Amino acid sequence: MSDEMQKHTEYMSQAVQLAKKGLYTTHPNPRVGCVIVKDDRIIGEGFHARAGEGHAEVNALASAMESVEGATAYVTLEPCSHQGKTPPCADALIKAGIAVVVYGMQDPNPQVAGRGLAKLEKAGVQVIGPVLENECERLNLGFNKRMREGLPYIRLKMAMSLDGRTAMESGESQWITGSAARLDVQRLRAQSDAIVTGIGSVILDNPSMTVRIDSDDQEVDSKSVRQPLRVIMDTALSIPPEAKILKPGKEALMFCVEEDIEQEHFDALKKTGVNIEFAPVGEDGRMDLIECMGLLADQGINEVLVETGAELAGAFLREGLVDELVVYVAPKLLGSDARPLMRLPIDVMKDAVELELESVRSVGNDLKMVYFPKYLEEDALEE
Amino acid sequence: MSDEMQKHTEYMSQAVQLAKKGLYTTHPNPRVGCVIVKDDRIIGEGFHARAGEGHAEVNALASAMESVEGATAYVTLEPCSHQGKTPPCADALIKAGIAVVVYGMQDPNPQVAGRGLAKLEKAGVQVIGPVLENECERLNLGFNKRMREGLPYIRLKMAMSLDGRTAMESGESQWITGSAARLDVQRLRAQSDAIVTGIGSVILDNPSMTVRIDSDDQEVDSKSVRQPLRVIMDTALSIPPEAKILKPGKEALMFCVEEDIEQEHFDALKKTGVNIEFAPVGEDGRMDLIECMGLLADQGINEVLVETGAELAGAFLREGLVDELVVYVAPKLLGSDARPLMRLPIDVMKDAVELELESVRSVGNDLKMVYFPKYLEEDALEE
Repeated sequence: MSDEMQKHTEYMSQAVQLAKKGLYTTHPNPRVGCVIVKDDRIIGEGFHARAGEGHAEVNALASAMESVEGATAYVTLEPCSHQGKTPPCADALIKAGIAVVVYGMQDPNPQVAGRGLAKLEKAGVQVIGPVLENECERLNLGFNKRMREGLPYIRLKMAMSLDGRTAMESGESQWITGSAARLDVQRLRAQSDAIVTGIGSVILDNPSMTVRIDSDDQEVDSKSVRQPLRVIMDTALSIPPEAKILKPGKEALMFCVEEDIEQEHFDALKKTGVNIEFAPVGEDGRMDLIECMGLLADQGINEVLVETGAELAGAFLREGLVDELVVYVAPKLLGSDARPLMRLPIDVMKDAVELELESVRSVGNDLKMVYFPKYLEEDALEE
Repeated sequence: MSDEMQKHTEYMSQAVQLAKKGLYTTHPNPRVGCVIVKDDRIIGEGFHARAGEGHAEVNALASAMESVEGATAYVTLEPCSHQGKTPPCADALIKAGIAVVVYGMQDPNPQVAGRGLAKLEKAGVQVIGPVLENECERLNLGFNKRMREGLPYIRLKMAMSLDGRTAMESGESQWITGSAARLDVQRLRAQSDAIVTGIGSVILDNPSMTVRIDSDDQEVDSKSVRQPLRVIMDTALSIPPEAKILKPGKEALMFCVEEDIEQEHFDALKKTGVNIEFAPVGEDGRMDLIECMGLLADQGINEVLVETGAELAGAFLREGLVDELVVYVAPKLLGSDARPLMRLPIDVMKDAVELELESVRSVGNDLKMVYFPKYLEEDALEE
């Protein structure tokens, strides 16, 4: 690597660190960081904190205590060229006299990608990049997927015993994992825009599925936590109106199938203020999960955390919807009568779902393993 | 830690490293390492390589190119005081004029523990220890357990998918894990004195269960590999005489139940030269696994590797016989119809088998996880 590129990588790495400060707060916007460098010194830093507030570039420009004229701006995402809630960042950089822009990745929306860079170049700003593209990509897995595919990035979280069981045959399941793993799940929730669960889990465990972060949490600022939308997949709309998950009012969304519901129950639920949508239905008469997730993306949902039982978890996986499988493995064996990880009927080894290990680490006494499913091109699971 | 103790720890650590050179060859003897130090320099090193050959202390004394008079000997295990295949090491150390002996752990046999140290002290040798006792203990988990409890140290090895499955419903199981994990299993076999399997696995997979180490293996010297005893638990003696596991002749041992066998089959098998023992039977009329393992210990078997199917694996665990659970986790899902890790009927969460994670690491694309079962005092699994 040339000295020049080495320098770019180091500054971009700092911009990435800044972007991460927005991990729990920028949704539905992307996490973006920016550093401004002049004579090999950082003279300005900024990140995007919250939708409607200043973008990273604007915050970095504003933070500089000296002139940014002729300086280089490192920004993790291509500066925007369009008027949104705030003016275009490309214009702000040009106006401030920035001489060079080093960018991490292009805008993931294929319809506007490159426009911000073109605007900068046209104004005589030198544009260099992409630099640290993978790291910058990883900052916004959800935003990027929504922009590119119209779907959210979906994490399926499971807590299981070493022998791959999530509950006893009776349904008894609290608690498989330890408190450190459960706290880690709270952080996963906090960075998600929506939590999806199934009616089976709601009836069995009556969870609230809210984010609970202590005020002394080292990683998440409890004051800035937004409660993600809670989404319940409930074909026949059989949820009891007193279910805890519906409690904080309008932040819950029910997906049900219009033909399968009882009008009376529907009316009673509507009165509680909960949001009910009729789910698109597939050829098999069942909810079309892909279409439902598309509807969430249309609402600006970038990252979805699926926390549910074997049935719905298996359905998400079979539909090819799971981008990331997060498994907490408790140091115990629940035995061969206990409930399986997910309902996933497979007959022959060649149809096994292949995964790619992303990471493994200890969380308290449990292990946290993150895998990416490698879906087959012709999906062997769908018949 | 005092400077003196720091020094002892460093030299003992080197003795432990030397002892490890005998990992694959010392059985039924323990792995022992020794360094001899004079004026803060190591002047002699030795380890025990093979039963019948020199002990670590004697090899270390012999390796010294200068006088060991007044030197300090660091030895991972209390020097022996009795005449075995070779003369007592305590005598050799005294005769050589060693002034100080620093030992790692006492002899694990409670009936002779301390005798070697007492002999040294009586001869005017200063005795210091135990030093790095845990590390020294871990060198010989099998030898120590056999000396203390009359049972071998039992590793249960399983290869499974992330969802805790070992085979498809049809029995199809080759291969779940990758080649690196399978090579790692060969090393586990090479350090074991016996491999135990069940008749079900023999009939299903027809394995040879021999150690296959390449001549260019970085860890195990293929020329020094001893084939472990292969032990087949086969209640009714239904093994076909042509089974591969019986092939290299007299290294296989069958455990069967005298009342359950057919005399004709017994005679036919005997002719192949295989060793058949009638297993002690428990009150339930089934093989008593604990007694069978005791019989192996009586033959000098220190470390047993159990490689078998769900049924026998579950039985070993339910009997409290598993000291170490070695699980290779492949990055795939075999689904909810596939075979469970082991037959282990448990109804309520409080009866779950608790484990303690010892280590986790990547082996090729798979994960290798090592757990210690934490058996309840009153075994909740036995009814």
